[in-house]
Amino acid sequence: MQYIAPLAKLIEHFRALPGIGSKTAVRLAYHVLDMDADQARALAGAILEAKEKIGYCNTCFNLSDRNPCQICDSEARDHSVICVVEQPQDVAAMERMGDFKGLYHVLHGALSPLEGVGPEDIRAKELLHRLYDGQVKEVIMATNPTVEGEATAMYMAKLLKPAGVRVTRIARGLPVGGDLEYADEVTLSKAMENRREI
Amino acid sequence: MQYIAPLAKLIEHFRALPGIGSKTAVRLAYHVLDMDADQARALAGAILEAKEKIGYCNTCFNLSDRNPCQICDSEARDHSVICVVEQPQDVAAMERMGDFKGLYHVLHGALSPLEGVGPEDIRAKELLHRLYDGQVKEVIMATNPTVEGEATAMYMAKLLKPAGVRVTRIARGLPVGGDLEYADEVTLSKAMENRREI
Repeated sequence: MQYIAPLAKLIEHFRALPGIGSKTAVRLAYHVLDMDADQARALAGAILEAKEKIGYCNTCFNLSDRNPCQICDSEARDHSVICVVEQPQDVAAMERMGDFKGLYHVLHGALSPLEGVGPEDIRAKELLHRLYDGQVKEVIMATNPTVEGEATAMYMAKLLKPAGVRVTRIARGLPVGGDLEYADEVTLSKAMENRREI
Repeated sequence: MQYIAPLAKLIEHFRALPGIGSKTAVRLAYHVLDMDADQARALAGAILEAKEKIGYCNTCFNLSDRNPCQICDSEARDHSVICVVEQPQDVAAMERMGDFKGLYHVLHGALSPLEGVGPEDIRAKELLHRLYDGQVKEVIMATNPTVEGEATAMYMAKLLKPAGVRVTRIARGLPVGGDLEYADEVTLSKAMENRREI
């Protein structure tokens, strides 16, 4: 005997989620069957509601339930600086940090010739369009410190500089709380290279 | 800035699931936002459908989309043997094993004075009722090999024996593929005690 059909289907759906293996999917499905009907309805409702209400901001392409989003629309933010990230999650990380008061631009990916991701697959041109009114003075490339992230930063710098903006890259170095002994050579070399007067 | 409301709500719902921590909940929520609308609807639908269609069999209390369930209703199964387990998941495990052709009874828990679970909190009396027609010859206690599972097996044996059935307990011993060197003493002692002629 296999699992009865509606249970098997639910397990399958859970297993399709990232980082959820077979055993976790089964445990989650049994947990749902064990919930109150109200709780299960609330879970299903939250999925539908999030999907329905949240879309992309047409300016910065971050996730938002309004358009333009709260950040793009805010007078309190510095509209002369744009921080460019790969994913909406990265905006959330920057906002948790709390020091940055400018605007964002979410590329939704990074250049990766190996995976066939070219400039037309990320929101590159849309960023260039945002520079036309001359309000933006600096673009901070905060793509990930990976091969793809670096390549994207380099590409964007070339694309944006002719528009007359300053393009900067977030610093690489030892993570705070990290241990010099265990740092990889590339990070250590970057940390030395980017050393500052104290 | 916190997460926008519908996203925060979805993250909260995911985090309420067993074994899902904060970071996984966030990753799952972003994944849902990244899905096609159809996929998200299918996931929500699978939750609602499973909850709606699956209930408990009134005879064995296993999860089922029919009543009596497929196993209780089957002529191909041996109606003279009942295997008693703690949870519906245990029935699924037994059925994967595939050797057992009798019926089941799901207690939905095990006796645990510490957690305040008494005989009236598990489906004990319902099992006794199943013995009244005299068809059942053997009840196999397949509760977990834990303190609670053992206590439950002992209690059920006392409850059921007056009804004139044979009550047995699944064997404890070394797990197949296990290593004697790393076996705990209780398991090893049980394995010695239950040794058989070869």
